[in-house]
Amino acid sequence: MKKENLRVVIVGAGSSYTPELIEGLSEHRDVLPVKEVVLVDINEERLKIMEGFVKRFCQHLDYHVDVWSTDSRKEAFIGADFIACQIRVGGNKQRIFDEKIPLKYGVIGQETTGVGGMFNALRTIPVMIEIAKDVEKYCPDAWIVNYSNPTGLVTEAVLKVCNVKMAGLCAGGMRPRWWAEEALNVKEESIYYDYIGLNHMNFTYNMTIDGHPITDEQFNEVAKKCVTVDQELIHKLHLIPSQYTQYYFHTSKIVSQLKSQDKTRGEAILELEKQIWREYANEDNYEKPKTLAKRGGGGYSRIAVGVMEAVYSQSGKWMVINVPNNGTIDFLNDDAVIETACFVSRDGIKPIGLKNYPKEVVGLISAVKNYEQLTVEAALTGDKDIALKALLAHPLVREYDIAKPLLDEMLEAHKEYLPQFFKDE
Amino acid sequence: MKKENLRVVIVGAGSSYTPELIEGLSEHRDVLPVKEVVLVDINEERLKIMEGFVKRFCQHLDYHVDVWSTDSRKEAFIGADFIACQIRVGGNKQRIFDEKIPLKYGVIGQETTGVGGMFNALRTIPVMIEIAKDVEKYCPDAWIVNYSNPTGLVTEAVLKVCNVKMAGLCAGGMRPRWWAEEALNVKEESIYYDYIGLNHMNFTYNMTIDGHPITDEQFNEVAKKCVTVDQELIHKLHLIPSQYTQYYFHTSKIVSQLKSQDKTRGEAILELEKQIWREYANEDNYEKPKTLAKRGGGGYSRIAVGVMEAVYSQSGKWMVINVPNNGTIDFLNDDAVIETACFVSRDGIKPIGLKNYPKEVVGLISAVKNYEQLTVEAALTGDKDIALKALLAHPLVREYDIAKPLLDEMLEAHKEYLPQFFKDE
Amino acid sequence: MKKENLRVVIVGAGSSYTPELIEGLSEHRDVLPVKEVVLVDINEERLKIMEGFVKRFCQHLDYHVDVWSTDSRKEAFIGADFIACQIRVGGNKQRIFDEKIPLKYGVIGQETTGVGGMFNALRTIPVMIEIAKDVEKYCPDAWIVNYSNPTGLVTEAVLKVCNVKMAGLCAGGMRPRWWAEEALNVKEESIYYDYIGLNHMNFTYNMTIDGHPITDEQFNEVAKKCVTVDQELIHKLHLIPSQYTQYYFHTSKIVSQLKSQDKTRGEAILELEKQIWREYANEDNYEKPKTLAKRGGGGYSRIAVGVMEAVYSQSGKWMVINVPNNGTIDFLNDDAVIETACFVSRDGIKPIGLKNYPKEVVGLISAVKNYEQLTVEAALTGDKDIALKALLAHPLVREYDIAKPLLDEMLEAHKEYLPQFFKDE
Amino acid sequence: MKKENLRVVIVGAGSSYTPELIEGLSEHRDVLPVKEVVLVDINEERLKIMEGFVKRFCQHLDYHVDVWSTDSRKEAFIGADFIACQIRVGGNKQRIFDEKIPLKYGVIGQETTGVGGMFNALRTIPVMIEIAKDVEKYCPDAWIVNYSNPTGLVTEAVLKVCNVKMAGLCAGGMRPRWWAEEALNVKEESIYYDYIGLNHMNFTYNMTIDGHPITDEQFNEVAKKCVTVDQELIHKLHLIPSQYTQYYFHTSKIVSQLKSQDKTRGEAILELEKQIWREYANEDNYEKPKTLAKRGGGGYSRIAVGVMEAVYSQSGKWMVINVPNNGTIDFLNDDAVIETACFVSRDGIKPIGLKNYPKEVVGLISAVKNYEQLTVEAALTGDKDIALKALLAHPLVREYDIAKPLLDEMLEAHKEYLPQFFKDE
Repeated sequence: MKKENLRVVIVGAGSSYTPELIEGLSEHRDVLPVKEVVLVDINEERLKIMEGFVKRFCQHLDYHVDVWSTDSRKEAFIGADFIACQIRVGGNKQRIFDEKIPLKYGVIGQETTGVGGMFNALRTIPVMIEIAKDVEKYCPDAWIVNYSNPTGLVTEAVLKVCNVKMAGLCAGGMRPRWWAEEALNVKEESIYYDYIGLNHMNFTYNMTIDGHPITDEQFNEVAKKCVTVDQELIHKLHLIPSQYTQYYFHTSKIVSQLKSQDKTRGEAILELEKQIWREYANEDNYEKPKTLAKRGGGGYSRIAVGVMEAVYSQSGKWMVINVPNNGTIDFLNDDAVIETACFVSRDGIKPIGLKNYPKEVVGLISAVKNYEQLTVEAALTGDKDIALKALLAHPLVREYDIAKPLLDEMLEAHKEYLPQFFKDE
Repeated sequence: MKKENLRVVIVGAGSSYTPELIEGLSEHRDVLPVKEVVLVDINEERLKIMEGFVKRFCQHLDYHVDVWSTDSRKEAFIGADFIACQIRVGGNKQRIFDEKIPLKYGVIGQETTGVGGMFNALRTIPVMIEIAKDVEKYCPDAWIVNYSNPTGLVTEAVLKVCNVKMAGLCAGGMRPRWWAEEALNVKEESIYYDYIGLNHMNFTYNMTIDGHPITDEQFNEVAKKCVTVDQELIHKLHLIPSQYTQYYFHTSKIVSQLKSQDKTRGEAILELEKQIWREYANEDNYEKPKTLAKRGGGGYSRIAVGVMEAVYSQSGKWMVINVPNNGTIDFLNDDAVIETACFVSRDGIKPIGLKNYPKEVVGLISAVKNYEQLTVEAALTGDKDIALKALLAHPLVREYDIAKPLLDEMLEAHKEYLPQFFKDE
Repeated sequence: MKKENLRVVIVGAGSSYTPELIEGLSEHRDVLPVKEVVLVDINEERLKIMEGFVKRFCQHLDYHVDVWSTDSRKEAFIGADFIACQIRVGGNKQRIFDEKIPLKYGVIGQETTGVGGMFNALRTIPVMIEIAKDVEKYCPDAWIVNYSNPTGLVTEAVLKVCNVKMAGLCAGGMRPRWWAEEALNVKEESIYYDYIGLNHMNFTYNMTIDGHPITDEQFNEVAKKCVTVDQELIHKLHLIPSQYTQYYFHTSKIVSQLKSQDKTRGEAILELEKQIWREYANEDNYEKPKTLAKRGGGGYSRIAVGVMEAVYSQSGKWMVINVPNNGTIDFLNDDAVIETACFVSRDGIKPIGLKNYPKEVVGLISAVKNYEQLTVEAALTGDKDIALKALLAHPLVREYDIAKPLLDEMLEAHKEYLPQFFKDE
Repeated sequence: MKKENLRVVIVGAGSSYTPELIEGLSEHRDVLPVKEVVLVDINEERLKIMEGFVKRFCQHLDYHVDVWSTDSRKEAFIGADFIACQIRVGGNKQRIFDEKIPLKYGVIGQETTGVGGMFNALRTIPVMIEIAKDVEKYCPDAWIVNYSNPTGLVTEAVLKVCNVKMAGLCAGGMRPRWWAEEALNVKEESIYYDYIGLNHMNFTYNMTIDGHPITDEQFNEVAKKCVTVDQELIHKLHLIPSQYTQYYFHTSKIVSQLKSQDKTRGEAILELEKQIWREYANEDNYEKPKTLAKRGGGGYSRIAVGVMEAVYSQSGKWMVINVPNNGTIDFLNDDAVIETACFVSRDGIKPIGLKNYPKEVVGLISAVKNYEQLTVEAALTGDKDIALKALLAHPLVREYDIAKPLLDEMLEAHKEYLPQFFKDE
């Protein structure tokens, strides 16, 4: 891409994350000449509040961009260069069902990795496909920069159905770099690694610094950053796992913890958000709410703006992104979306070949991808039997005696947002 | 193979199953001209009792073969045509640990599919490799007809290390044929199917009778024979699963049942065997003990003699056997042993190409094969960390908080039979 | 298949080969209970002559089947069990162009392997697809037993477009067995081998007799039967090549020979056929014309009736047939039709896994398959540029300076039979 | 890599190309802090002349590096960062045999693509492996930057046998970029493409400029730069071929031209070189000889210094390099070296995934790679029968009647430089 006066559209701008993205754009103003930021959301009230805040925030940052909002995707998309998507279909209200219902069956809900993630995908995929079809129609050259969870499944579904440019993002892919940067006090750009797996089910290996393989001591320092997984386990694997692999390696412990909590993450966020939105609505407030930090998602802006900069830049960059496999991982099929190191440039996002991957994670990655592909198929067809097969394929469910009633209860709870499964009613 | 006067050696002849095999050989005497049956075992007492009984049993069957026993593999192997292996390293005594210890951790032990199967493999593989090396040396043209459990892992390990002809047997592969034969009242030879997976983790599909795909009604009749798995689940999958998939699809239910039983299967068999061996030892007894039927393993003789006949026969036969994958299943590597439909003839055992396999079982098969390959590696190297990785890769274990103490306790319980893990002590 | 009173339809029955097939059916009357033989051809005159002769011939053979002819495929196909296809679109008249024109450019024409084979495919594929579509409609359970050349390309095209049961036949696949049978004086059924490649571009290796690898002396005896290829070359390869590989290994020599001949093979056959048809038309003649032996194609009946018997039989058979690759050869794609050892039974025709294939033939097989796949695409689309790419991909052409004028001249000569390339005129 | 004071060793520094490399290093002095340039050659006379000239040349360029020469690889390698290899085993004297002998058989000799290239590989590979083993021993972290022809075969052989970092270079990989830069007057960095194939047998497709696919008009402008291949052919393929594909698409024409020339390229160069070396030897001469331009190899310096800069740089670069396939091209095996777009950084050289490659070139690429792999095997083993198989696999030879006598004559002519083939004499 080579163009001045870029337009960035934020779909789902009524998310409390929006200012993080604005801040990121502002920090990269030298390399990313944004002219317009267009905010789109179906929640008019939040959209208006956010538009007001973003304008004040840009003023505060001395960042000169035109900020406007619309509920018309057509209007926003014509002329757009980047479509940042951060939608949450059904909002945190449905997320709470995602988290709570599975737990009744002793199963992890979790909005990306657990059964909640599956239903999040079933709700989100049809909406994201509508958005992508509008991109096809109104701005076919624009890049979709997706942050809507679960990003791997959403990206796979969209790229199966639509002919668009799309980057499936998650800060998790760059985290080992950031961890090493901090832990070893080296520059980010001097750190590389091989990275095998899927969004939230992946493993980093062959890390080098300035071309030299890291020592065992360095490995241990980086490993310490991955606080969710037992350190001894990490040492034995000699791989840096995704933090989300905790749901696989420490399932029972986490189920117990979750069961003993007063509030689910979704419930906690609902409360936090009340405070955050009060601050956004305050017309005297020109700064990011402090509470936002508790909301999480700090890496969001860094990676989203990073990928925009890379596809815009002259020389290209190494980044870990969700892209179609196309032979990168030999035991997965070509259209499976994987999270892997890519060369990102004006020419697009292309996976870089993996070398000597660790054999001990093949089964887990295959099993999770199998669950994912069945979920994508269920989302696209609305076939309940395929949804059942997805649950059976999910390593955290697998048992028919759990999958069957759990499926029924989840479908019922999310009925309003899953029209494809209730066509005949 | 084309030879008269065949010699069949039975290694582990001190198993109570031996007479089943003798009966099978006797029934096929027209097509399989056996001259000698040689019994080999390390348990001298049982070997003597069995030799006596087999001689009386052959007399009773009017089956004229030379029966003799020896504790020298060399003596038995020189001139042998078939080496039937049915060893159980550590006997039912160790099997009881296999079944009981995992249950303490809420995990299925089961001697093939569960964690017990893993330790059965760790004990059996080194011994089977010694046997196979003797085959290489003394009778390189002989066929090893293996029935030692877990047959898939044992076959993979032996074929990785030794250059021998080996058939990894399990009656499970032919069971869908036998089920359809009974359920639909058709001839065995008119029934074919595609069969994807591993020993005890497999699925039958595309069944035809006389070249016609079976109807849904016929499918349901065959499905009823698979009594361990929920019928509704089988209907939704529209695949005939291995009976052993119950451990995956109904885990919690089975764990509860097992926990509530007085005796494990191993303990029950230990008692049964006392009675069976009393009968074998009775010099007036010329017939198979009635109790033997309760011992299970009825299909053993049928498949073992079937494969001997097929590699000896003029025209070859269709059989489901454990063989190296060699591209048959595209998501597994070439040296992975799979259980699949083969053309078995004088030319050996060769897998027949699969077509349009069901995508929903890819993850489960990949995950189990991953566990199996790590177990084979652990068995060959005696590396405890690889054994840990095998447990983490096992879909029925996976959690580090379980795997770690379970590994330690199992290694300790089987220490006597796992010298490769205790080399340094 | 399990049925009495089979109906065999012969499409292209006006071929002089028809009586060979009748004789084969007659010889297998015990195992193949044919009730009706239906002759179909677009050449009415020849059809009538052949019908008369076949009736007399059956009487002579004391073979009691109903013989009738029709020009309606519909009438013939409804109720049919086997559709034997032996069509030659444009007849020997066009074949002569296939042979002569390429020779002007120093390129081999040859009706299967050479550029003639390509144009034979371009003419034959659309007609065979029409026939196959009628099979889909009128007798979807029937087997198409194809002998129309070039059989690999025709089979690939039909199976890409139609959902039918089809065996692509060539006697070449069984020839190494027949050669070994004669050369070594052993029974056909005791001989097996691995066989890699395509129709007329293939190599036999790993031959065993009664399960024992053949010795070097035995290899040399079998090799002698492959008279078209230099014996020293065969020894160095230690593979039995298809006789047709002579066109690749001895190109220049053959081009010289062909250039120096008075008549092409097609011209010689045209003359032979005059004599043969005179004999067929003679109402006093009850026997196969002696001249027929010179016509070639002796193995035709043996393999065609062999495959009919195998899909009808109880137990199945090992045969070399043209079938979709489906992973058998790892460097070709799944829908590429290859010629390979198959298990042929009521369940259909399924490739048997290959082992340790010789690496030195990979390039030649890839290159020829590439040419074939481009030819199939050209035949289906009528795209002249794809036809040009097919010629460039053909190892015997490759040069643009030859391909371009050769393509133009061939298209012109066969214009009448290549309507798909002249749609716009 | 992150280091100041780099040492660049030039092996084969007695090549007339050396000053080009020096000039390139000098031009990149800002980004590549070279401290020492060490010249190594087995030809002492030339080495001395070159050392003298390079010192004067650096002075002329005001490029302050320590220049010294040695005949000891050990001395040169200890402490080295880059080993630039540009050896020619047997020199232009043997090259003349490479070019002339095949022509007698009507076959192209050409030092990389033709049969000459095969014998160049047979001579060069053993020497390069010795050099690489010294790198393993004395400077295992150094990068071998190989320019010795045929670079793909040499790189494959070395990486099969040695554990070194190695870049197989050819300016051909970057040429489409340079062509587009000139033809379209755009910046090099804004041009990307997919690139499939091998050194000198490759095709560029999917070219984009600033992320936009090039138009047909732009394609045609770039195509014009590829002057060796018929423009109409390029348009029909809609791929930019390597200039060296002329030997495949225009074989006969080139054979005629070569036969009619007075002198082969090697002979012409021998004469040119006399003049060039006279100028190098002239102690008053501080500049590159004008005649050098006629010598060819202009891109050499640009790509060699480019790759040095990329592995040294902070951010990495897109470059086309010869690397092991590792799944990039799905129809070639993993250790096949291919020429493909790579991400080159401190982390090494890693292939970038290919997309939707053109099917029509699969056969040619497979065939040439097959020839290459057999040649590598022949070079490593000295097995004449494998060398014969390589010639049979070579699309420009293939015929046994040519391959056999050609092999004998070439082996004889190069006997002195092919000790591995004459071990027993």
